[in-house]
Amino acid sequence: MNRHMRPGVWGVLATPFSGSTFDVDENGVAQLVEHADAAGVAGLTVLGVFGEAARLSWAERRLVLETVLDSTDLPLVVGCTSLATAPVIDEARMAVELVGDRLAGVMVQANSADVATLDAHLRAVHEASGADVVVQDYPVVSGVHVSSAMLGDLVARSPHVTAVKAEAPPTPVAVAELTARCDVPVFGGLGGINLLDELACGAAGAMTGFSFPEALVATVEAWDPSEPGKAREQLLPYLPLITFEQQVGIALAVRKECLRRRGLIAESAVRPPARSLPDSMRPLLEAHVAAAAAATDPNGGE
Amino acid sequence: MNRHMRPGVWGVLATPFSGSTFDVDENGVAQLVEHADAAGVAGLTVLGVFGEAARLSWAERRLVLETVLDSTDLPLVVGCTSLATAPVIDEARMAVELVGDRLAGVMVQANSADVATLDAHLRAVHEASGADVVVQDYPVVSGVHVSSAMLGDLVARSPHVTAVKAEAPPTPVAVAELTARCDVPVFGGLGGINLLDELACGAAGAMTGFSFPEALVATVEAWDPSEPGKAREQLLPYLPLITFEQQVGIALAVRKECLRRRGLIAESAVRPPARSLPDSMRPLLEAHVAAAAAATDPNGGE
Amino acid sequence: MNRHMRPGVWGVLATPFSGSTFDVDENGVAQLVEHADAAGVAGLTVLGVFGEAARLSWAERRLVLETVLDSTDLPLVVGCTSLATAPVIDEARMAVELVGDRLAGVMVQANSADVATLDAHLRAVHEASGADVVVQDYPVVSGVHVSSAMLGDLVARSPHVTAVKAEAPPTPVAVAELTARCDVPVFGGLGGINLLDELACGAAGAMTGFSFPEALVATVEAWDPSEPGKAREQLLPYLPLITFEQQVGIALAVRKECLRRRGLIAESAVRPPARSLPDSMRPLLEAHVAAAAAATDPNGGE
Amino acid sequence: MNRHMRPGVWGVLATPFSGSTFDVDENGVAQLVEHADAAGVAGLTVLGVFGEAARLSWAERRLVLETVLDSTDLPLVVGCTSLATAPVIDEARMAVELVGDRLAGVMVQANSADVATLDAHLRAVHEASGADVVVQDYPVVSGVHVSSAMLGDLVARSPHVTAVKAEAPPTPVAVAELTARCDVPVFGGLGGINLLDELACGAAGAMTGFSFPEALVATVEAWDPSEPGKAREQLLPYLPLITFEQQVGIALAVRKECLRRRGLIAESAVRPPARSLPDSMRPLLEAHVAAAAAATDPNGGE
Repeated sequence: MNRHMRPGVWGVLATPFSGSTFDVDENGVAQLVEHADAAGVAGLTVLGVFGEAARLSWAERRLVLETVLDSTDLPLVVGCTSLATAPVIDEARMAVELVGDRLAGVMVQANSADVATLDAHLRAVHEASGADVVVQDYPVVSGVHVSSAMLGDLVARSPHVTAVKAEAPPTPVAVAELTARCDVPVFGGLGGINLLDELACGAAGAMTGFSFPEALVATVEAWDPSEPGKAREQLLPYLPLITFEQQVGIALAVRKECLRRRGLIAESAVRPPARSLPDSMRPLLEAHVAAAAAATDPNGGE
Repeated sequence: MNRHMRPGVWGVLATPFSGSTFDVDENGVAQLVEHADAAGVAGLTVLGVFGEAARLSWAERRLVLETVLDSTDLPLVVGCTSLATAPVIDEARMAVELVGDRLAGVMVQANSADVATLDAHLRAVHEASGADVVVQDYPVVSGVHVSSAMLGDLVARSPHVTAVKAEAPPTPVAVAELTARCDVPVFGGLGGINLLDELACGAAGAMTGFSFPEALVATVEAWDPSEPGKAREQLLPYLPLITFEQQVGIALAVRKECLRRRGLIAESAVRPPARSLPDSMRPLLEAHVAAAAAATDPNGGE
Repeated sequence: MNRHMRPGVWGVLATPFSGSTFDVDENGVAQLVEHADAAGVAGLTVLGVFGEAARLSWAERRLVLETVLDSTDLPLVVGCTSLATAPVIDEARMAVELVGDRLAGVMVQANSADVATLDAHLRAVHEASGADVVVQDYPVVSGVHVSSAMLGDLVARSPHVTAVKAEAPPTPVAVAELTARCDVPVFGGLGGINLLDELACGAAGAMTGFSFPEALVATVEAWDPSEPGKAREQLLPYLPLITFEQQVGIALAVRKECLRRRGLIAESAVRPPARSLPDSMRPLLEAHVAAAAAATDPNGGE
Repeated sequence: MNRHMRPGVWGVLATPFSGSTFDVDENGVAQLVEHADAAGVAGLTVLGVFGEAARLSWAERRLVLETVLDSTDLPLVVGCTSLATAPVIDEARMAVELVGDRLAGVMVQANSADVATLDAHLRAVHEASGADVVVQDYPVVSGVHVSSAMLGDLVARSPHVTAVKAEAPPTPVAVAELTARCDVPVFGGLGGINLLDELACGAAGAMTGFSFPEALVATVEAWDPSEPGKAREQLLPYLPLITFEQQVGIALAVRKECLRRRGLIAESAVRPPARSLPDSMRPLLEAHVAAAAAATDPNGGE
């Protein structure tokens, strides 16, 4: 197995922006990385969907990656945005070039329900770039619906695939199907909303963004199949915030504002055409962040 | 305001079935009603989406309604399945005929983004049946996306509309928009997954199915805008089960099996083509129900 | 084989409405039936999607059926609107009761991609009602995507299924797949837009609405696999109108106005929430109908 | 008005591939360009959806563009694949750099139903790249549904927008709405399936791929609002092939095989995960191409 692809929590990095031109805020990137690192994540996933990779220029993607590399020694998974082989290879090659031996893998969308097509795609990306592949099954973004059984079997016979990120609901069912068929770590996503159930079904952890990554780390560390109550206890105080963050259509805007309120980034703007935070959510958000902060540090202020 | 349309929790009734022919289990219907009544709900919503109304024959709908009427004195909202005016009127008239003055309203889907079309639809249903109307905004089921602002304004000038069930995510944002524009009670749905946020935005309660309706009742009763922590404390122990129940595609199958494990119904089958419960979910489900039961009755067994 | 289920053109009947209350116009129904009969259709499909069955009350459905029965001796297929077994049985029983031995079949939507679920559904409808079944594969309406191979194999072993209406694009591919696997007549739909290709793939004809059914009849009658040019010649002058009628979102509104301009119905309203005819289409529509009428009767006026 | 943005037919270029590795076939690109040029197109649209731009690497996009530039003197529209501003600017800048003053515009997807967001997007692309903008309204690809009225008004006050490609069905309705509100040329697309109706609604021509571009040119040249029959006569013999090519899901595979059969490209493969040509379509395709070829050159062979 890929020595990099540790179980645990892989933080999915947001990309903070500055000002009316939405410039990449390198300082904010560094702070988010340092916070996640200190929170105990196993690694970081950069240029994912919630890193707004599809809204970055090519130069900005490089800038984000370089900033992350300068801010941590953690292994990295680098997300690829495209669905077709040739442009994914472009993305994978940039990841290999910049990240080098700290690259845990490139994350590639499951792009076809047809097993031969998907197999050829994953294989071609690996062969052309040299990178290991993390398969992301995320139909809301890809528009592609694959069977977990097919995917699990394909992964089992694909040594270049070193992890799966399971984001096709119902995800606990998918995790159970995948872990019954292949041995690579399978990670939950979707902000951790079904993390307890995914762990119970054999997930190796979570690969997702959440404004309190320390909560996900504590939950996964506390996971013990014979005593699920321990992990449950860790996650419980954060679950209201998780359900608040996972609101369809505004999830990223909510999360970035939570990060801002925590002092981790200076501004919370999302790039258009993504939807910005409705004003009606601001007071709720404050209360949620305060409650989560109190759970994180019972003695401290926020 | 409609004297029936009380704030609080309106339980959405599941329809239990028996045997390989999936016959309506009248006894199970009665038990669910009695349990909800004892749990303190303000009323019941019958023949809703999660009551599988769209999978019942006309005679079975009558049977369910009559069984409910015989089992409780609570006011009832009766769901209408169709999207067009004439068949909704058929449904509304049956509700009026059977339920009489215990009818709090017929629940009608928002069927058009065009305000004039929607207005004419709601008005026609009311005029033809005499029933008050609860508007349900549930795009996953209706396929119709309406603006909350438009809907709120329309409701404000429609005396025959006595409540809104807001199920277009992000629902807290929708509840805020609706309650700013109209005075009727606005209820959250979706199994209570965002209930705390919906209450904070002005919701009058929840109109939804959840296998522990007592938890929703306790939460809504504890709601105090100046002390949101009280309601949060009530809901927290149930939130893992709520996120478990709300899994896309298997939500109803999960909930009915939870109800069965609680002893409220004898069998948990859903009618095809709805998806049945994946076996991998059974052990998780047991643990969830046990944890929720422990929270409900700390001294009792399940 | 069902003696009723003749190859050829099965006209799908529109339901004309009158006045601001959109009452069913029985006289218009009768005229449409008589026109289709005179045009040489093999049978009629009543209460289909384009008959707006989903927007009729139960009494109106009976009225339409009875009016049709009084207006022709043709065999009838009766459409069922629901997706679940129990309400489809309600619909099928009404069809059997009213239509008697002139019933060629009830048309039932393919309601599941799972072969066992679909098999049980079709079988249950047949057994409860006694009616033969025409399967309609129309994913735009049903939201269900089935494999043509699975459907063809299922039909081949289902003696109670006597025809398939293939409306899952690409329909010629579906027709080829179905006719390779089962022996019942397979009909194209979708207004005839791919009729030539469907015939070339083995379709037994068309089951669809088009404002000039005589054109579809002439095309199917002229079909000769060794001389496809003959059928092509028949359809060609109508193809611009067919592509005009098949416009997404306004197809029914366009067709009904074409029927009105032909003098077959008095008013062309569609019931809300269906979209009405945009004014910008009126002059084009006149020209299309005039051109088609000239092709139909080179010596006559319209 | 942009001197380049001539009315007429803008051919949308397919990208031919060779062998099992699907390499870009430069020779095939050149032949397609030369054929379109000889057919009388007003210009060419390169790197569009049907050019499979989203499945090309960055280097391949350059290669295609350079090959086109070497093969013709026609003005070019260059398609942009992304939906967000920063990556579209990357694409637009490459177009400006390579195409220089032969660039008629970059084609940018309408990426938001919100007028301010769309306005800012189009403006930013123009300002950062210097290119004029052709707006493409193609919801099947973008997932974005904009109002034609909003788009028309925005275009009317955006001097940097020099054309619209209207591909939101019903397209004739959209063309009528757009041409009533703005003065730039509005082009139909979708393979020409509603070309006659789009011209009748004020379209300046067609911007689309079709295996017989000469047919579209002849139709647009013959267009005379006072004698629509002339254009109709030109298009009629090709309409069966157009409806055959426009089959949902296999349209590009069909078209490329038509081009191959015409001798314009050597192989007809589409890049995965696009669907390849079902074998059942091959004999039909031969017959369609033969009939269209006979119409194109009544005296010649194919």
